Amino acid sequence: MNQPAAPPRSTLVVTAHAGDFVWRAGGAVALAASRGEKVTIACLTYGERGESAKAWREGRTLDEIKELRRTEAERAAAVLGAEIHFYDAGDYPLLPTGELTDRLVELYRAVQPDVVLTHPAEDPYNGDHPAAHRMAMEARVLAQAIGYPGPGEIIGAPPVFYFEPHQPELSNFRPEVLLDITAVWDTKRKAMECLAAQQHLWAYYTDLAVRRGVQLRRNAGPNLGLAHDTMAEAYMRPFPQIAKELA
Amino acid sequence: MNQPAAPPRSTLVVTAHAGDFVWRAGGAVALAASRGEKVTIACLTYGERGESAKAWREGRTLDEIKELRRTEAERAAAVLGAEIHFYDAGDYPLLPTGELTDRLVELYRAVQPDVVLTHPAEDPYNGDHPAAHRMAMEARVLAQAIGYPGPGEIIGAPPVFYFEPHQPELSNFRPEVLLDITAVWDTKRKAMECLAAQQHLWAYYTDLAVRRGVQLRRNAGPNLGLAHDTMAEAYMRPFPQIAKELA
Amino acid sequence: MNQPAAPPRSTLVVTAHAGDFVWRAGGAVALAASRGEKVTIACLTYGERGESAKAWREGRTLDEIKELRRTEAERAAAVLGAEIHFYDAGDYPLLPTGELTDRLVELYRAVQPDVVLTHPAEDPYNGDHPAAHRMAMEARVLAQAIGYPGPGEIIGAPPVFYFEPHQPELSNFRPEVLLDITAVWDTKRKAMECLAAQQHLWAYYTDLAVRRGVQLRRNAGPNLGLAHDTMAEAYMRPFPQIAKELA
Amino acid sequence: MNQPAAPPRSTLVVTAHAGDFVWRAGGAVALAASRGEKVTIACLTYGERGESAKAWREGRTLDEIKELRRTEAERAAAVLGAEIHFYDAGDYPLLPTGELTDRLVELYRAVQPDVVLTHPAEDPYNGDHPAAHRMAMEARVLAQAIGYPGPGEIIGAPPVFYFEPHQPELSNFRPEVLLDITAVWDTKRKAMECLAAQQHLWAYYTDLAVRRGVQLRRNAGPNLGLAHDTMAEAYMRPFPQIAKELA
Amino acid sequence: MNQPAAPPRSTLVVTAHAGDFVWRAGGAVALAASRGEKVTIACLTYGERGESAKAWREGRTLDEIKELRRTEAERAAAVLGAEIHFYDAGDYPLLPTGELTDRLVELYRAVQPDVVLTHPAEDPYNGDHPAAHRMAMEARVLAQAIGYPGPGEIIGAPPVFYFEPHQPELSNFRPEVLLDITAVWDTKRKAMECLAAQQHLWAYYTDLAVRRGVQLRRNAGPNLGLAHDTMAEAYMRPFPQIAKELA
Amino acid sequence: MNQPAAPPRSTLVVTAHAGDFVWRAGGAVALAASRGEKVTIACLTYGERGESAKAWREGRTLDEIKELRRTEAERAAAVLGAEIHFYDAGDYPLLPTGELTDRLVELYRAVQPDVVLTHPAEDPYNGDHPAAHRMAMEARVLAQAIGYPGPGEIIGAPPVFYFEPHQPELSNFRPEVLLDITAVWDTKRKAMECLAAQQHLWAYYTDLAVRRGVQLRRNAGPNLGLAHDTMAEAYMRPFPQIAKELA
Repeated sequence: MNQPAAPPRSTLVVTAHAGDFVWRAGGAVALAASRGEKVTIACLTYGERGESAKAWREGRTLDEIKELRRTEAERAAAVLGAEIHFYDAGDYPLLPTGELTDRLVELYRAVQPDVVLTHPAEDPYNGDHPAAHRMAMEARVLAQAIGYPGPGEIIGAPPVFYFEPHQPELSNFRPEVLLDITAVWDTKRKAMECLAAQQHLWAYYTDLAVRRGVQLRRNAGPNLGLAHDTMAEAYMRPFPQIAKELA
Repeated sequence: MNQPAAPPRSTLVVTAHAGDFVWRAGGAVALAASRGEKVTIACLTYGERGESAKAWREGRTLDEIKELRRTEAERAAAVLGAEIHFYDAGDYPLLPTGELTDRLVELYRAVQPDVVLTHPAEDPYNGDHPAAHRMAMEARVLAQAIGYPGPGEIIGAPPVFYFEPHQPELSNFRPEVLLDITAVWDTKRKAMECLAAQQHLWAYYTDLAVRRGVQLRRNAGPNLGLAHDTMAEAYMRPFPQIAKELA
Repeated sequence: MNQPAAPPRSTLVVTAHAGDFVWRAGGAVALAASRGEKVTIACLTYGERGESAKAWREGRTLDEIKELRRTEAERAAAVLGAEIHFYDAGDYPLLPTGELTDRLVELYRAVQPDVVLTHPAEDPYNGDHPAAHRMAMEARVLAQAIGYPGPGEIIGAPPVFYFEPHQPELSNFRPEVLLDITAVWDTKRKAMECLAAQQHLWAYYTDLAVRRGVQLRRNAGPNLGLAHDTMAEAYMRPFPQIAKELA
Repeated sequence: MNQPAAPPRSTLVVTAHAGDFVWRAGGAVALAASRGEKVTIACLTYGERGESAKAWREGRTLDEIKELRRTEAERAAAVLGAEIHFYDAGDYPLLPTGELTDRLVELYRAVQPDVVLTHPAEDPYNGDHPAAHRMAMEARVLAQAIGYPGPGEIIGAPPVFYFEPHQPELSNFRPEVLLDITAVWDTKRKAMECLAAQQHLWAYYTDLAVRRGVQLRRNAGPNLGLAHDTMAEAYMRPFPQIAKELA
Repeated sequence: MNQPAAPPRSTLVVTAHAGDFVWRAGGAVALAASRGEKVTIACLTYGERGESAKAWREGRTLDEIKELRRTEAERAAAVLGAEIHFYDAGDYPLLPTGELTDRLVELYRAVQPDVVLTHPAEDPYNGDHPAAHRMAMEARVLAQAIGYPGPGEIIGAPPVFYFEPHQPELSNFRPEVLLDITAVWDTKRKAMECLAAQQHLWAYYTDLAVRRGVQLRRNAGPNLGLAHDTMAEAYMRPFPQIAKELA
Repeated sequence: MNQPAAPPRSTLVVTAHAGDFVWRAGGAVALAASRGEKVTIACLTYGERGESAKAWREGRTLDEIKELRRTEAERAAAVLGAEIHFYDAGDYPLLPTGELTDRLVELYRAVQPDVVLTHPAEDPYNGDHPAAHRMAMEARVLAQAIGYPGPGEIIGAPPVFYFEPHQPELSNFRPEVLLDITAVWDTKRKAMECLAAQQHLWAYYTDLAVRRGVQLRRNAGPNLGLAHDTMAEAYMRPFPQIAKELA
C-alpha cells in the first residue's frame, strides 16, 4: 500500500500534580520518546499545597513554591523528552470544573493521542488524584463527539492506562500491565532527581521499579532472556485491549 | 546475536467439552496456526451428556454420541490447523481428579506453551467449565516446579487468557482483550460448520463475533483503517500483561 | 372491602437523551401502556451533542438538531403510548444541578409513580448516563420527604429498575430481571423506526431483544410454552423486591 | 385455550440440617402450601453434630440425637404442610459426593420443581451450608440434561432463591426479595416451636421477621395498606427474574 | 522516659443530621467520655427536612423544627459527655461545598482528633449520609497538609471508623469492628430518649445493640466471661489498623 | 476479683509449607513469644516439591529435601520461640482430606488458640496456600462443636488473621492490620537466615517489612514517636474485631 507516512504516535498524560508523571509514568514517557514519539503532559496543578511539605516548612511563599515546582517539572519533562502544559487549577482540593474539562477537551483534540495515561479512580489518601481522573476520562469522551464545540478535529477512542498510585493495595489497584522500562531506567532516574522537593521518593520509586521488574520476570517465564535488573512500571487497563495476537 | 532459530510459538487450549475450542477460541486458534505456530487442544470430555441433547433425543447410545462428537471435533481442529487430544474423563459432571491433573501436567511439559487458553472461573449454567478451569490452572503451576515428578522439562509461566462463556454477564466475564479475527473468520466459520450437533449455535457465534468486532472498532478509534466487517473474540487476562510498549 | 377504584398504575422513566427510552425501555413502556397504565418520560436533554453525529456531519445547526431530536422522540413516545417531558438541560456533559433535581422532585410528586426506570450507576462510555442516574435517584428520595418543600403530595418508595446500557459488560450491568416484551415487540420496533438519526441501532437493538429472549427462555425452562421468537429486555433491581410469592 | 388442568406448582427446598428449612424458609414453605401447592424438603443431614449442642451436653448418644432431630423436623414439616426427605449424609463436615448429588438429581426429576430454595454460596461460620449449596446447584443443572442417566423426566430451569444465613452481613447476603409472610406467620411460629432443641432461636427469628417486615413496608411505600405487624423473609436471586410486568 | 503528660485522647464525629451520632455511635462516644477523653461532634444539618416527618405532620415551621432538633441533640450530647457543633448547612439534600469542607478542616485542626467517626460511603436511602462522608474524608486529608491555609496545627492521620447505616445489607456495610458498649449502655439509652422526635427508633437501636452483642460474644468465644446482656456497636475500618499485637 | 492466673495466651499458625511461617508471620510469632506466650505452628508439608527448586537442581532426593527443609524449619521455629508440628501431607498439590482436617481439629483442641494465623483464600500462583486455608478454616469451626468427636475440650471462636501472600495485589490481599514488629525484627531476620534453601527471599522480605513499616507510620500519624526504621507485617481480618475502644 502506497500510503503517506503516518504521523508519529502521540501519548497524552493527565496528572493532578507536578511530580506525578515522573514517579508513576516516567518510564512509559521516556520509552515513547525514545522511539521518536510525541508525549504531552497535562499538569493540572503544581501540587503546591498538598505535595510540597518541605518547602512550606522552609517558609517559602505560595508563589515561590509554585515557581519551584514548575521549574522542577519542566526539567524532568525535558529529561524524559516530553512537552508539558500547566493549568494552575489549584490543588488540595483540586475541584473539577466545566471550564477545566473544556480546556482538556481542547488539548485532546490538539494532541490527537494514541494512548492516554492518568490516575486510577480511587485514592483514599489524596482526593486530587480521583478528581484529575474524572476530568481526564470525561474530556476523552467529550473530545470524541462531533457535536461538542471547539477547535480541532474530534479524536478516536485511545486506550487508557491507569498508572500506579502510592498505596496500590488501598486504592483497588491491580497490576494488569507490567511495562519493561529497563532500557530507559537511567533516564527515569535522572528525571526523578530533578524533583529535589521530594527527594525521599527517589529510593522508594527505584525499589518499586525493581519489585515490578521481578514480577515481570516471574510472569514472563524463564525463557525470555530478561536481565536480572529488569525494571518495570505497573498499569491498569479500564477498557479492553485491542489485539492482533494473544501474547 | 547469532542465535539458533527459536522454535515456533506454542499455544495450549484446555477445554471441558468437544465444541468449546471452536465456539469460544476458534479465531485465536486459527490465527496462531496461520502464523505457522503450533496449537494443541486438550479436550477433557466429549460433552456426551451435557451438550448433545439433539443426539439423545434421536435415540443414540452413549458410545455413538461420543464417537460422533469426537469425529466432529477432529474435523474442526483440522480445519483450524490444530492438534487435538481427548481425555474422555466423563462430563456432567466433570470431576477434577489428581490423575487427570497429572496428565495435564505431562501435556504442559510436552507442549511447552507460550500461551494458554481456558475457561473462566465461574459459570452458573455449566459446572464442567469451572472444573476444567481449575485443573488447567493447577496443572500450569505444577508443571513449573522442578520438584513435581514426571517426564519432560519444566515450563515457564505462560500468560493465560480466559475465553468467553455462553452467558458472560452472569459469569463475571468482562472483555479485557478483543482479538481481531477478521483475517481467519472464514476458517472459524468452516470449523463451526463441522459441529452439526450444535447447528443452532452457528448464527449465534457469528453474531457474537460481529458484536465484539463493533466493540473492537469502537475502542480502537477511527484511525486504524479497520474494515466495517471486523470480527473479534473477547478474552480476560488473570495475570498481568508483559509489555514493551503501552498500546 | 368496598374500596374506590384505584387509579391506574403509573410509571416514570428518567433518561439522559432523547432516544434512551426507546432503545433501552421501549418494551416496558409499551407493555405498561398496553395495560391501560400511565407512563411519563422525563428526557433531560435532546442528546444534541453526544448522540447526533450524523446530523452534525450533515451541517445542521444546534437548534435544528434539537428540534429534530425532539420531534423524533415525541413521535416515538406517541407510538409507545407515553407522555414525554423535555428539560433541555444540555448534554455532553449533562451537569447535575440542584434546580434540575428540584424539577424532578416536582415531577415525581405530580406523577406519583408505582415504578421508576432509569440508567444504571456506571457507564465509562457516556458520562451523561450516570449523571441522569444520580439525579433520578436523589429526586426519588427527596420526593418522599414531607419536609422537602414544593407542590404535590409526597410519594411512596416505588421500586426502581435500571435498564441496560449499550456496553453492559463494561458497565457492571447484570441482568436481574428479563421482561417478556414479545406481545409489544412490533410497537417497540415502530418506535425505534421513528429515530431516523440513529438508524444503525435498529438492527442492533432487535438482535439484543432476541438474545435476551433466548436467555429468558433458557431461564424459564421448557414448560412455559414460550414462542421461539420471544423478545425481552433486561433490567437490574437496586432495591429488594416485595413479593407475595416466590416465582 | 382448552388445556388440561396444570399440576399444582411444586417447590423444592434443599438444606444442610434438620432445622434450616424452618428458620430460614418456613414462611415461604407455609405460603406455598397454603395455596395448595406441593413443597418437598431435602434434608441432607440431621445436624446431629454441629447444631445439637444442648443434646450433647445432656449426654445423649449420636443415634438418640439423630432420632430427636428427625422427629422434630418431621413435626415442623407437617405443621408447614410439606413433605420431607432425609438423606442422613453426616454433618460437620457435610462432604459433597457424587452419589449424594446423584440422589438429588433423582429427586429434582421426581419433584419437577417450579421453584428451588437453598443456602447461599458463602457462610464462614458453617461449612455445611456452602456444601449443601454446591450440591443443590449442581444437581439442578444435571437434572436438566437429557444425557444424564436416571429415572424420570428432565426438568426445566426453575428459579432459585437463596434464603438468609444466620450472619447475613458476613456471608455476602443482600436481601433481593422480601417475601410477605404475615398471613402464615402463626404457622411458621408453630413450626419453630417444634424445634425444642434450638429454643433460643425462636425469639431470634421472630425478631428477624419483624425487621424484614419493616424493610418490606419501607420499600413498598405507604400506599399498600400493609399492617404494622407485617412479617417477612429475605431472599437472593442468583438467576435473572422472568417478568411479565415490572413491579 | 520522663515525658510530659499526654493530652487526653480526642475523638471527632462528623455526621449529617442531628440524631446520627446518638443512634449509630452513642456507645463509642459515651465510652470515650467515660475514660475522661474529649469527644467533639460536628453536626452538619439538623435533619430538619429529611428526618423530622412527625414534626412536619404536626404543622411545625422550618425554624421551629430546627430549634427542636437542636435542643434534643444538645441534650443527648450532654448526656453522652460530648461537645457538639452545628453547621446548619441545610439537609435533603446536603450539598458538599468548598466552604463547608473548609470549616471542617478548621475543626479537625482545632480538635486534633486521635479517632474519627463518620458515615460509610454508600446509602441508597439517604443521599445526605454519603455527602457528609465525602466532606469528612476530604477535610481529614486537607487538614494534614502544611500547605493548606488556615489557623491551627496540621493533624496526623487519625484512624477512621464508619458507623452502621440504617440498612446495612443494602449499603455495603460489613461489621469489621464490634465495640463492647455494655458498660455505657444505660447512658446511650438515656441519650436516645432525648430524641423524642424519633421515638420509634429507641427500641430498634436497642435491639440492634443486643444483636451486635450476640455477634460479639459469638466471635469472642466462650472464655471471655462476657455477660449475656453484652451490648455492642458495629464499625468498618477503611484504613489498616495499627497493631502492637494481634488480638 | 480473686481469679486464678490465666494460662498464657496461645497462638496457632497453620501453613502449607515449611518456610511460610517465617516469611509471612515471623514477626507476629516472635512478638507473641517475646511476651511469654505460647505459639504452635502446624506445617502441613515440607514444601519439598514446590518450594525447593534449588535442592532439586542440585540433584537431591525427595527424602533428602524433606529432611533439609524440616531441619531448617525446626531451627527457625526455635529462633522465633515457637513449637512446630509437621504433617508431611505432600505438597504440589496439597490435597485437602478429611483425615488431615481431623488431625487439625485435634490440634486446635489441644492448643486452645486465642489467635489463629493462616493463608488467605486466594493465590493464583500457588494452589497449596488456598488448600491450607480451607482446612485451617474448616477445622476451626469443627473444633468448636461439642458434637464433633475426638479428644480435648471444644474451643472458642478465636480471631483469625490472614498473613500476606507473595503477590498481594494479585491475590485480593488488602492490608487491614499493620503489626509493628520493630522490637523483634532481629529475631525474624535470624529466623529467615535459617532458611538457606530460599536465600533469595531474605532481602525481599526485609524490604517488604520496611515498606509495611512506612505504611504503618503514614497511617499512624506523626504523633506516635515511631522510629524511622519501623518494621511491620500486614494482615487481613476475615471476622469482625472485638474492641473495648476504637483506636
